[in-house]
Amino acid sequence: MRTGVIGLGAMGMPIAANLHQAGYLAAAWNRTRAKAEAFARQTGAAIASTPVELATQCELILISVSADQDLLEVIDALLSGLAPGSVVVDTSTVSAQTARQVAQQLARKGVHFLDAPVTGGVEGAKSAKLTMMVGGDAVVLERVRPTLEAIVQRIVHMGPAGSGQMTKATNQIMAAGVNQAVTEALAFAKAAGLSLDKVIEAVGGGAAGNWFLSHRGPTMVRDNFTPGFRLALHHKDLSICKQMASDLGARLPVIEMTLIHYQRLMETGYGDEDISALFRLKQKLFEGEP
Amino acid sequence: MRTGVIGLGAMGMPIAANLHQAGYLAAAWNRTRAKAEAFARQTGAAIASTPVELATQCELILISVSADQDLLEVIDALLSGLAPGSVVVDTSTVSAQTARQVAQQLARKGVHFLDAPVTGGVEGAKSAKLTMMVGGDAVVLERVRPTLEAIVQRIVHMGPAGSGQMTKATNQIMAAGVNQAVTEALAFAKAAGLSLDKVIEAVGGGAAGNWFLSHRGPTMVRDNFTPGFRLALHHKDLSICKQMASDLGARLPVIEMTLIHYQRLMETGYGDEDISALFRLKQKLFEGEP
Repeated sequence: MRTGVIGLGAMGMPIAANLHQAGYLAAAWNRTRAKAEAFARQTGAAIASTPVELATQCELILISVSADQDLLEVIDALLSGLAPGSVVVDTSTVSAQTARQVAQQLARKGVHFLDAPVTGGVEGAKSAKLTMMVGGDAVVLERVRPTLEAIVQRIVHMGPAGSGQMTKATNQIMAAGVNQAVTEALAFAKAAGLSLDKVIEAVGGGAAGNWFLSHRGPTMVRDNFTPGFRLALHHKDLSICKQMASDLGARLPVIEMTLIHYQRLMETGYGDEDISALFRLKQKLFEGEP
Repeated sequence: MRTGVIGLGAMGMPIAANLHQAGYLAAAWNRTRAKAEAFARQTGAAIASTPVELATQCELILISVSADQDLLEVIDALLSGLAPGSVVVDTSTVSAQTARQVAQQLARKGVHFLDAPVTGGVEGAKSAKLTMMVGGDAVVLERVRPTLEAIVQRIVHMGPAGSGQMTKATNQIMAAGVNQAVTEALAFAKAAGLSLDKVIEAVGGGAAGNWFLSHRGPTMVRDNFTPGFRLALHHKDLSICKQMASDLGARLPVIEMTLIHYQRLMETGYGDEDISALFRLKQKLFEGEP
């Protein structure tokens, strides 16, 4: 299926590279043109000069951007080029409400939309081992599934439009809590004078084991906080989650705590680091800082 | 190596059964005698009438009890029967301070002691896939390793006496945080009307994935809170962790929150349930309760 990719960021770039390798990529477009040109030079892939030009060449368009506003702008820029029957798949993390709004906007032009956020980190994007959680029409999903399988390992159809994003919100909440768990525990272990590499080995194999400990533990204990997943971006996601929970009449105590911690890290210049930079703050608890 | 087991609880019973199957179990003893007799009937294993009787028959004694005081009482009861050069391995979760105290007490009689708490849950104990984190003399550990390998999959030597328990404390802190993460996220997903089985499938494969979600998620979403790991026991462990952190001059925000949540669950009669019963409390957040 002739596929276009919009957005060549930390996730979009390896996604586009895998589609190109599988022979599906018709063209890519990126807001910052220099990035698209670098991608074209590295891979030999074609780049489009505008979203509309890309839309006219493709039956399937994959979007990977950072925030709700970016998605809405991309959709506006694509709209006049999209043929009825074509499919837009958004792999970004945005609110369920925005996803439902875009689905309705495209439906009026006879264009299908799937909200299809992913998890598995940059590693998963590179190795095509992402998990995709999809909201929208199951029949449309089946049509594009063979192409999507070039970039993901697992696809779970969650329900109607917006339910992919609700599932991703659940994922972001869980990831925040696991980050709290791992960084607080490792700060304790460090203060206790234990070998952190041995702790990761011992704890990782048991009932407290988790992806984040195995993949970010070894780097965070070496003060390496290269993203991975940018802390400021997770802060944005969690703000949306807090609002969603509030709309459901509830509070999320772990998320409220994490938003405060992330805010403090962003104010002290760590917003562009990986979310494991929370380890910086947890260590301060053992150095007598509040 | 002729091995005795003291304590046939949720963990001790399958540990003793695996040692018996491997041909290492000389005898078992349990405070409540009826439990030991039931174990003997089921497996054909021998039981000792007192700890001293067990001590005289064994070169290696494995202990699996619930709390510091239980361990101290068992050591007192064993003491007169232990031969110099024999090895006592405590798989219980107690404070590092108690572990160091017991190590010194036994050393005065020429008996070796390893603090060797385990992780992997009741499932890990049954399938002999536990991970063991060991504090004490590495040479002594090598002597008993072949026997221990009948009950565990991985053994990590952490350092001197007490460091096994410090590592287990780290594990218990992480487990509490992961419990917070998983239950808060699944309560959100439930309130959002998602299929929780699909959420577990989609989220479990990605960067928020963890043992607890895969093993306790499917039961907690069916209101099944059979332990597993008893909530009141985790509360006891976390109280010790909080004290240890306080001794290191620090606070553990996630643990303090969890202690309050567990306390509330214990007061309303859920202390004997699995720690995943925290899901009960998180769901109440979405039902307008504080």
